[in-house]
Amino acid sequence: MLKLKYLGGRKLSVKELICNTSKSYKVLIEKDILNYSGVHIKNFSNAKKVLVVTDDNVAGLYAARVVSHLKKHFHEVYLFVLKSGEESKSLDIAPKLYNYLADKFFDRQDLIISFGGGVVGDIAGFIASTYKRGIDFIQIPTSLLAQVDASIGGKNGINLEHGKNLIGTFYQPKLVLIDPILLNTLPKSDFNDGMAEIIKCAMIKSDKLFEKIVGFKTSDELEEIIYESIDIKRKIVEADEFESCERKLLNFGHTIGHSIEKIYEYKKYSHGKAVSIGMATIVRAGEFLNLTEPGCYNKLICVLKKFDLPYEFTCPIKDVLENCLNDKKAYLDYIDLVLIHSIGRGFIKKILKSKLKEYIRRDIL
Amino acid sequence: MLKLKYLGGRKLSVKELICNTSKSYKVLIEKDILNYSGVHIKNFSNAKKVLVVTDDNVAGLYAARVVSHLKKHFHEVYLFVLKSGEESKSLDIAPKLYNYLADKFFDRQDLIISFGGGVVGDIAGFIASTYKRGIDFIQIPTSLLAQVDASIGGKNGINLEHGKNLIGTFYQPKLVLIDPILLNTLPKSDFNDGMAEIIKCAMIKSDKLFEKIVGFKTSDELEEIIYESIDIKRKIVEADEFESCERKLLNFGHTIGHSIEKIYEYKKYSHGKAVSIGMATIVRAGEFLNLTEPGCYNKLICVLKKFDLPYEFTCPIKDVLENCLNDKKAYLDYIDLVLIHSIGRGFIKKILKSKLKEYIRRDIL
Repeated sequence: MLKLKYLGGRKLSVKELICNTSKSYKVLIEKDILNYSGVHIKNFSNAKKVLVVTDDNVAGLYAARVVSHLKKHFHEVYLFVLKSGEESKSLDIAPKLYNYLADKFFDRQDLIISFGGGVVGDIAGFIASTYKRGIDFIQIPTSLLAQVDASIGGKNGINLEHGKNLIGTFYQPKLVLIDPILLNTLPKSDFNDGMAEIIKCAMIKSDKLFEKIVGFKTSDELEEIIYESIDIKRKIVEADEFESCERKLLNFGHTIGHSIEKIYEYKKYSHGKAVSIGMATIVRAGEFLNLTEPGCYNKLICVLKKFDLPYEFTCPIKDVLENCLNDKKAYLDYIDLVLIHSIGRGFIKKILKSKLKEYIRRDIL
Repeated sequence: MLKLKYLGGRKLSVKELICNTSKSYKVLIEKDILNYSGVHIKNFSNAKKVLVVTDDNVAGLYAARVVSHLKKHFHEVYLFVLKSGEESKSLDIAPKLYNYLADKFFDRQDLIISFGGGVVGDIAGFIASTYKRGIDFIQIPTSLLAQVDASIGGKNGINLEHGKNLIGTFYQPKLVLIDPILLNTLPKSDFNDGMAEIIKCAMIKSDKLFEKIVGFKTSDELEEIIYESIDIKRKIVEADEFESCERKLLNFGHTIGHSIEKIYEYKKYSHGKAVSIGMATIVRAGEFLNLTEPGCYNKLICVLKKFDLPYEFTCPIKDVLENCLNDKKAYLDYIDLVLIHSIGRGFIKKILKSKLKEYIRRDIL
């Protein structure tokens, strides 16, 4: 829903979504909303103390601005800067953040804001959900991937040596602020990673969004695409917050994707690129097995190429298989795979683990 | 509700409570239920793998029995033995347990059972709530304190240097099994600690239960007293699972109690004994301030003496005050104190932090 609001004499055109999960929260999307973050956040929080968690990349570009806007509205504002990159998402970071909060006497009514990409959101969300059994949490995602994916749905995660996100909780934020302007400073490759998740949403739920991505030309169209992508995720998460069924659709491309990321120790492929390969692999198999309408694979790889996203893996099939079987969504003798009937119509198929190899092949089409 | 059931040809008289929180779960109370734990748990879990978390005290007495009962019903049963005592409740334990679970490929559908007192339940509950964003959790509390308090309500906690339970989540179990027979091996002093929490429940909600405690003579009466105490906590937790209001009643005696525990670095006073002093202190102040019916203090200390529970603190008042103000329930300029109108009628009073000293005095009555 597009809303016109007046704020400090300024007419705003804020796109607003309400996510009705166990706790309801708003997602506000608007160009330049960062410069009004203080007043927006104040509407949702009675905190005396605010901790902004960010990383060194984002801090250099924007932290001073955010902190100065927050200081107009909150008594004490602190900044905790993580080293950027997935390595920060280890358990080692937890005591540092807990102790920092306790040192400053943070209370349940105080607030943690994550200001960064998915890694920052994952760490800040986990800490918020477990410090004093949960303190308020607000997200300002700065990457496209975090804006359309990580900031919606309340999942957070910390990595163990055994795998990614093996530790985590479901914990909904109180508010999400999305500023597409922040994407101007995002490296092209990171932007494409975000597009991979938007393509995923389109593939499972909306051929209309898929067509918009196919036709995408300028950043002016971005706000609308972000909005639609979030709206898809919102509906799915509302229907199944704790991932017992419908929410598994969001794992489209992820079972194989996670496996590929892990094989290369999270170095060769980013999450978005690994998921792109995962989507292409499963759509190709779907067509071969007559589960997916013919032609989907070609349409998908066309759009993946448009954003320089890969669609083939080169490592041994048996390695991919083995890692899939140790994915955290695997249980008992079966594994839930997400396939599509056609573009915009995803479905979940429970298959025997022993049959998984039929879905991970390269010798088809 | 008392239910008669047949199980393996044996007529059982199981007392059953249903706790209707965000997830509903049953509490089954019965003498000797430990020997039927496998079949009961099987009714509530499709796990392939079960991890029993316990401590070295309990392990020596009962672990072999529990494991053998579980092995009749579950494919893989593992035992993780913690060092007994509060020191185990540090963050250091978390990676050990997470890695243990990941090593054994534990999945969301698998199960963690806490088998021990409050410390074991706190650690196992926290790990269950955060491993893979939450795996199934069942409690078999072995101390009276854990049976009537820690195992009901879904709170767990890990200590930081800055204070107890500063890390934790709200996470409900799938089932709680309570076997009063286990209390036969419980040291007298630990038994009395449990009685302190039962007295607390009576003080805030039931003069009838208070009278039963006054008249308590033999362990035959224990099952009924445990049942009633849990039932009080159940109703409160159902009304306010996440402690925004009503649940704060359960902190009766705890603000001052926690403070006293901390002053002596958790060595001189156990939790139950510190809470006893907290209750007596606040009831005495309540009478002095005309907030509490006269005579309650004398009745309370009578029953505390019966169970060798202390009712006076000897450390400087200013130390108690200072620690109260850094309690995790403290926020902004106010603190929520729990008082009683009379026995069985607790209430919450929000007071200015600067007024707290009026409630922590020794120069009255």
